[in-house]
Amino acid sequence: MRIAIDAHGGDHAPTAVVNSLRLAASQWPDTTFILIGRDEKLLPEAFGNLQFVQVSEQIEPDDEPVKAVRRKKDSSIVVGCQMVKNREADAFISGGNTGALMAAGLFHTGRMRGVDRPALAPVFPTLTGKGILVLDVGANPEARPEHLRQYAQMGSIYANKVLGFKEPKIGLLNIGTEACKGTELTKEAFSLLEQERSISFIGNVEARDILYRPCDVLVCDGFSGNILLKNMEGVAKAIFERFKQELTASLLNKLAAAILKPGLKRFARDMDYKEHGGAPLLGLSGPVIKAHGSSDEKAFYNAIRQAHLFVENGVIQRIEEELSH
Amino acid sequence: MRIAIDAHGGDHAPTAVVNSLRLAASQWPDTTFILIGRDEKLLPEAFGNLQFVQVSEQIEPDDEPVKAVRRKKDSSIVVGCQMVKNREADAFISGGNTGALMAAGLFHTGRMRGVDRPALAPVFPTLTGKGILVLDVGANPEARPEHLRQYAQMGSIYANKVLGFKEPKIGLLNIGTEACKGTELTKEAFSLLEQERSISFIGNVEARDILYRPCDVLVCDGFSGNILLKNMEGVAKAIFERFKQELTASLLNKLAAAILKPGLKRFARDMDYKEHGGAPLLGLSGPVIKAHGSSDEKAFYNAIRQAHLFVENGVIQRIEEELSH
Repeated sequence: MRIAIDAHGGDHAPTAVVNSLRLAASQWPDTTFILIGRDEKLLPEAFGNLQFVQVSEQIEPDDEPVKAVRRKKDSSIVVGCQMVKNREADAFISGGNTGALMAAGLFHTGRMRGVDRPALAPVFPTLTGKGILVLDVGANPEARPEHLRQYAQMGSIYANKVLGFKEPKIGLLNIGTEACKGTELTKEAFSLLEQERSISFIGNVEARDILYRPCDVLVCDGFSGNILLKNMEGVAKAIFERFKQELTASLLNKLAAAILKPGLKRFARDMDYKEHGGAPLLGLSGPVIKAHGSSDEKAFYNAIRQAHLFVENGVIQRIEEELSH
Repeated sequence: MRIAIDAHGGDHAPTAVVNSLRLAASQWPDTTFILIGRDEKLLPEAFGNLQFVQVSEQIEPDDEPVKAVRRKKDSSIVVGCQMVKNREADAFISGGNTGALMAAGLFHTGRMRGVDRPALAPVFPTLTGKGILVLDVGANPEARPEHLRQYAQMGSIYANKVLGFKEPKIGLLNIGTEACKGTELTKEAFSLLEQERSISFIGNVEARDILYRPCDVLVCDGFSGNILLKNMEGVAKAIFERFKQELTASLLNKLAAAILKPGLKRFARDMDYKEHGGAPLLGLSGPVIKAHGSSDEKAFYNAIRQAHLFVENGVIQRIEEELSH
């Protein structure tokens, strides 16, 4: 197995990427790890199952995605997606520009047979530490009912083969629990999901319940999914920040905070996306994974572990079989 | 001025409603307060500026909204909305079934001239204690660009006249800050809002920034708005609950919690929707306000204060002038 990784994606790149790769290389000696970057000095000890592919360009976080992918053909993101297409790599991971990775995935790796729209599928943290796979969170702002059915099928297979959930329970994001609730899209999708025999559909799920983990996989259009993702991140971050202010407001508060620290740390860890690896772009012809922009060494390591399971368990083949029916 | 209020709406009704009404009656001696309920014993001392209107039916929280409004013609929700229509009341407040109140508002109070779709417009709490008016949060799951323009105009007037914001800054909920981001709806709405001279449009706003209060008024389709509202409520509630568990996990933790209490209480109060009154149904021919289902005496009192400003400042007339152009 060969797993390629973008040296330049994310706030803590390239150090966090290189460190996670060294760890992975010793953990999985039979897997070849390919670092794609601009400077070969990044990996001076490249040998054995650690390789380096040099590129001359770099897509920046603020670059306009489609333009960047068209112009910067020798960037790590474009080259990584092409390597998956050409079977030079079995999977590609990047913590870089999300839009550019989606565009490069679509243009250079290409869609899988039977899939109309690839979906970005991160795992949302919940109160229990176990996450929910949510798709789509923005690969396609607009969706048709049939797309949501495909998201459900892809999500179900991925949640089973990579996240290890038996018969994943699929929910539909909606503004009420009754079948008649929501928009034309959710009403038609509800009926398609109900009829789909290959998945275990549990009905509508409301946004207030996500942290209590009402299902294993949640499907929604990319606009709503993106609103949900960013709102959860934003609200949790803002509340934690404000709590932190309170915990450090005085010497006495700091003493109190010291007592509470172990419990609060456990909570923060349960709520941490880093435990769950990256977000696969499901529906491409090969495994492409978006690692969170603020990924540290551990988050990249988890994304590598996830890519490993993705390839090992033949998720692409399984989805292709299921959707080409 | 005559303000009518539903005795039976909300978890703490009728006690919280009746108590808030007594307080309001002494606070505003020139205003007549009309309690609408099933049991006249609710207000044994009805006299002066405190009146009672008896009804024979009650819409329950779980009733199917449209059916309930059609069948229970002598319920507080239907009678209250009719009283506004017939000018027997200048405003109506209910903490009851949201869907039923929206349906009764539409059928019995009726739309305002120039408005295609009324919108439900709650104030979302933010970290600073000052809120953001968000519309629509579910009166219409689907919206057209023109509806979003009307929401912006109505929201701008309401935020100015009732919430006291000078030249309210209007944002459009979207999945990126650039004009080209999002769906066909948000792209077209962006261009309409940019051209609209009666409002101060600041551009797209992302869901992660809401708690930091990037604007005074946020417009969105009812589906996204409802997802946002319920997610914020759900995430904040879940995190606070989990913190509470930590704060009471041991005797030592309880001691630490006692030290932190004043600061945490201040934070909880800043984040409390109750400070902001209820959510007006903007676009009806008269003021109808939805109080939160878990409203206590103080929340109902704030909703009454809000209804007072709504009527006193001629918000309905102002919106009608603006939108009938």
